[in-house]
Amino acid sequence: MTTRRELANAVRALAMDAVEAAKSGHPGMPMGMADIAEVLWNDFLQFNPANPKWANRDRFVLSNGHGSMLQYALLHLTGFDLPMDQLKHFRQLHSKTAGHPEASETPGVETTTGPLGQGLANAVGFALAEKVLAAHFNRAGHDIVDHHTYVFLGDGCLMEGISHEVASLAGTWQLGKLVAIYDDNGISIDGEVHGWFTDNTPARFEAYGWNVIRGVDGHDAEAVKKAIAAATAQSDKPTLICAKTIIGFGAPHKQGKEESHGAPLGKEEIAAARAQLGWNHAPFEIPAEIYAAWDHKKAGAEHEQVWNDAFAKYAAAHPELAAEFKRRLAGELPADWAAKSQAYIAKLQAEGPEVASRKASQMSLDAFGPLLPELIGGSADLAGSNLTKWKGSLDAATGNSADGKGNYVYYGVREFGMTAIANGLALHGGFIPYDATFLVFSDYARNAARMSALIPAHAIHVYTHDSIGLGEDGPTHQPVEHMASLRYIPNNQLWRPCDAVESAASWKAAIERKGAPSCLIFSRQNLKHQQRSEQQVADIMRGGYVLSDPLDTKFQAILVATGSEVELAMEAMRALAQQGVAVRVVSMPCTEVFDAQPLEYREGVLPGWCRARVAVEAATADFWRKYVGLDGEVVGMTTFGASAPAPQLFEHFGFTVAHVIDAVKRVIR
Amino acid sequence: MTTRRELANAVRALAMDAVEAAKSGHPGMPMGMADIAEVLWNDFLQFNPANPKWANRDRFVLSNGHGSMLQYALLHLTGFDLPMDQLKHFRQLHSKTAGHPEASETPGVETTTGPLGQGLANAVGFALAEKVLAAHFNRAGHDIVDHHTYVFLGDGCLMEGISHEVASLAGTWQLGKLVAIYDDNGISIDGEVHGWFTDNTPARFEAYGWNVIRGVDGHDAEAVKKAIAAATAQSDKPTLICAKTIIGFGAPHKQGKEESHGAPLGKEEIAAARAQLGWNHAPFEIPAEIYAAWDHKKAGAEHEQVWNDAFAKYAAAHPELAAEFKRRLAGELPADWAAKSQAYIAKLQAEGPEVASRKASQMSLDAFGPLLPELIGGSADLAGSNLTKWKGSLDAATGNSADGKGNYVYYGVREFGMTAIANGLALHGGFIPYDATFLVFSDYARNAARMSALIPAHAIHVYTHDSIGLGEDGPTHQPVEHMASLRYIPNNQLWRPCDAVESAASWKAAIERKGAPSCLIFSRQNLKHQQRSEQQVADIMRGGYVLSDPLDTKFQAILVATGSEVELAMEAMRALAQQGVAVRVVSMPCTEVFDAQPLEYREGVLPGWCRARVAVEAATADFWRKYVGLDGEVVGMTTFGASAPAPQLFEHFGFTVAHVIDAVKRVIR
Repeated sequence: MTTRRELANAVRALAMDAVEAAKSGHPGMPMGMADIAEVLWNDFLQFNPANPKWANRDRFVLSNGHGSMLQYALLHLTGFDLPMDQLKHFRQLHSKTAGHPEASETPGVETTTGPLGQGLANAVGFALAEKVLAAHFNRAGHDIVDHHTYVFLGDGCLMEGISHEVASLAGTWQLGKLVAIYDDNGISIDGEVHGWFTDNTPARFEAYGWNVIRGVDGHDAEAVKKAIAAATAQSDKPTLICAKTIIGFGAPHKQGKEESHGAPLGKEEIAAARAQLGWNHAPFEIPAEIYAAWDHKKAGAEHEQVWNDAFAKYAAAHPELAAEFKRRLAGELPADWAAKSQAYIAKLQAEGPEVASRKASQMSLDAFGPLLPELIGGSADLAGSNLTKWKGSLDAATGNSADGKGNYVYYGVREFGMTAIANGLALHGGFIPYDATFLVFSDYARNAARMSALIPAHAIHVYTHDSIGLGEDGPTHQPVEHMASLRYIPNNQLWRPCDAVESAASWKAAIERKGAPSCLIFSRQNLKHQQRSEQQVADIMRGGYVLSDPLDTKFQAILVATGSEVELAMEAMRALAQQGVAVRVVSMPCTEVFDAQPLEYREGVLPGWCRARVAVEAATADFWRKYVGLDGEVVGMTTFGASAPAPQLFEHFGFTVAHVIDAVKRVIR
Repeated sequence: MTTRRELANAVRALAMDAVEAAKSGHPGMPMGMADIAEVLWNDFLQFNPANPKWANRDRFVLSNGHGSMLQYALLHLTGFDLPMDQLKHFRQLHSKTAGHPEASETPGVETTTGPLGQGLANAVGFALAEKVLAAHFNRAGHDIVDHHTYVFLGDGCLMEGISHEVASLAGTWQLGKLVAIYDDNGISIDGEVHGWFTDNTPARFEAYGWNVIRGVDGHDAEAVKKAIAAATAQSDKPTLICAKTIIGFGAPHKQGKEESHGAPLGKEEIAAARAQLGWNHAPFEIPAEIYAAWDHKKAGAEHEQVWNDAFAKYAAAHPELAAEFKRRLAGELPADWAAKSQAYIAKLQAEGPEVASRKASQMSLDAFGPLLPELIGGSADLAGSNLTKWKGSLDAATGNSADGKGNYVYYGVREFGMTAIANGLALHGGFIPYDATFLVFSDYARNAARMSALIPAHAIHVYTHDSIGLGEDGPTHQPVEHMASLRYIPNNQLWRPCDAVESAASWKAAIERKGAPSCLIFSRQNLKHQQRSEQQVADIMRGGYVLSDPLDTKFQAILVATGSEVELAMEAMRALAQQGVAVRVVSMPCTEVFDAQPLEYREGVLPGWCRARVAVEAATADFWRKYVGLDGEVVGMTTFGASAPAPQLFEHFGFTVAHVIDAVKRVIR
């Protein structure tokens, strides 16, 4: 009979061995949390190794992601498709065992972690998704959505500000199926934490309305079991289990010290640890009886089968709901989506409303929202400014909207937490989340927006008040470098539409971009409507297209613009035409999508023979050098903005017809 | 006899009138906090309107900076150089009354606020500066550094994650002279906060080790006075005063509601408010007796004189310390700085150590640190990785280092809080702060780094592990877009040195950049030493320079590189030379400084006749289009990194001699 400690020691040994083989990594946390993980995974966690995407599985998140070997060991031992050879190639190119857990690489990894605190935020997103999805789909006698979310976290996660934002929300939202286990080992990279981390963490979480279980011995399996049982026995508050652990447990000379945190233990210490733990097996060798005790394939299949049977009954009682559930979880758009969304865009082109693009965004939500119950929106306390609430918006997160149709989240002033929660909502399945703040405050959420692209997650980030056009609030609130910075995030797509039509198209593109994020950038101020042919309307989706060409003559220069500067470019083009200068105007709402078009298309829009190019965007000028080169010019921003009414600012910073005309004349040779 | 309420009403009236005149702004907070501000400014705050920079003044920070009219009204009424005409031009171009308070624009504004939570963080920096400066300079019987820091904050500040990070640190550091007053009005932009903000804030701050004064009526001057007196009477804990207020106090139909928060009240409501408040004066009209009661010019001069007298006694007793204090507060570098720092760089050039640039950074600190007692360093729990501790580093913030020489801060895992605290340290005077984390986690601190440039503040941000060269930790930890994004922050300067010599030069440049920030980007891995003439060593400070030219022939192409890719460019150059292809190599450690050089210098380095240019940097490729144009090529990154040993990653992502050679050959026409 294997003991619980022996099972945990298998995790410890694999962590030591894999880090040693990789010559880098973090053995301390896996060795410290192995006993807790053993109890959670063997006694509580509901999952099926053969189907990591089973809809109603419990979610497990490793917020202290540097302890990745803990998760890889668990996945391997319980029977996921992660063979020993992968563990032997921990942290090597093309392996499935990256330095930090990556959802896109490894079966059974729910989200990509490592940037501290964000795993906890993703977990809050998972738990919120479960709660809202349950409200959408569960019916009397049919709790088809009913799972827990477990998250491991460390001191680092708790020091990060995002832990405050999302723990506060989890408390307000009463996410009773969220269980966080705090690896209270008293050590962070700089050493013993008492010099920089003296919070009374249990009291802090109680202040957020959490259920806190104090002082659990993280190496006493029975104590851990009792704590998790208590956490899952109640349902009206999230639970924080504070587990005292010894980092590097089992390594006789390094345990309890920072030395065990982030480097291989070394051959001698590993040998000593093997002796101390009583683990007499070669590196990467797991005895058959240990494998057998860990193996979760049979139990997992049974778990899923129970649910499949329940779902079959649900489908019999509620066939339409069941079909809709399957569609939602598969991430498929409704059958009528393509036609209806296209029709809305065509209607806008015909009607030509002249509104701020943030208003056009809201109109798009009013048009698309009724088609998409999976849309779950929200704003960081700027609903009335971001215009993220539409006619069908109903509070989703608190108990105030128990009608089962909630689709809107009041995030409060918590941009980072909001964005990382949105990543969790997207990863859970069943939702397309959108979040919102002023573009300048995308800074606060910056790494979560990066994670949207890296994980990747189908999250839509709405950023309004997109330039000095914000006006009087001044330079603290006026973005300059933000669009360029967001465009430079790999795998991100940023849209800055120039009118209501492009705004709707950008929403359509973002919604259809399955599995990956978009940023939608909207203006505070009204924008003119642009005329377009049917082909031009279709070409919006190519990211950049010719909005206007001279009628009877070859163009001498190209103006490239986005958003509010497209109308400026059009005005300059008309004025230049009157002076006999023929100019093409290119609208470029999404540079990433344009860059991904075939060369012939790009050449058709920006032909190589024409180097007389001027880009116009009220943002970082240098970004546009990639399109205008050294021979062109950019009418852009090179400084911070200022506090004044928007029209004066555009004038002050040179966004005038006269200035654009001058630039065009300079570049024509 | 004027009443306290009348004095406060003067603030309310000015806020209403200025917002109405500007047709935008935030009247609610100034009207809600006017009574509190009146008590603080009239009964406690020590300042001299005639000398806003008096060294020992109390610092006042408006963390809820949207209530800027509160601060402008206070500055105007107490006698700062902010005439009524400025208030009448609230939020207008070229006025000193921007939408949010800006330290660079308005006398008496200590820091630029608006981005929520950061004012609190700056205030923690001020209080830390006071504590450390006192330890450096106070001597028995001579408390020449002895002031309080007061900060107003709102629900928004408390929801933001950064409030957690810095409140936790303030508690750990026992900043007893920090007094925060919480404007507990129950309202944020989305409405009544109970739907998204249910924290027990007093309990939360007690969990951080703060002294919390609960339930103060923010409209009862005596209660407020008692609370502030209690806060200042103790000195071992920071204090949070929780003041219940009514937003928009006095506006009969809008007070207590979100409507009063962020828009003009309108003529009718202002008239009704005037009636309710009993304020029977025309817009922007302040009766003489109200002015007289507010006038702080005489009292302020007396306050300062008392200190000046004390300082004179201190100077008599400790003349060298007094001179050093004056130097430090003036932000002047020591007399021997220029020569000694230059000598160190020359020595490095001669000796040519080949180390990681993070190690070279630490060597620079070892060389420069003894010259600069104003340097106050720190890292977000990565001291051993960032290599930010040098031989003279001593804990500054906690009681553990009471020897009066503390110069190092253990920030824990709190990048955003650290950076905003550093801004406070810089603004206080007496310090040049440097902070540190991995480059990828500059994301977490992003808006504070932006604020360093906007305020501006002389902060030095050290970011190590600067590329895929970080290796096995993988894409969550590998920066790609970060350097380009930081370079695009206006008024920021980013250095990415290629060897130990450039590393020392970058530190020298950052230290000498008075009043404005720099980012120093260092490698994890070792870098080769580069040969340079004396002129080339001097030209490092120009941001970009010719590192290598062919001996006997005109170059056919230019390779531009930074950091770890400079040695790759040099290798490629040598290989090309053997193939008869003559190439110039330009090292470009700081693009912003290079861009600011005279045209002749820039043309000398990157002559217009040579369009055959290849840039090499293991980061966002598109950034370099500004130097290589449409005819050049970039060997850079276009995707996220991966988890593997660094040498394999450089190979995998194309940073090879062969690849650079191919690019050069393609661009030579």
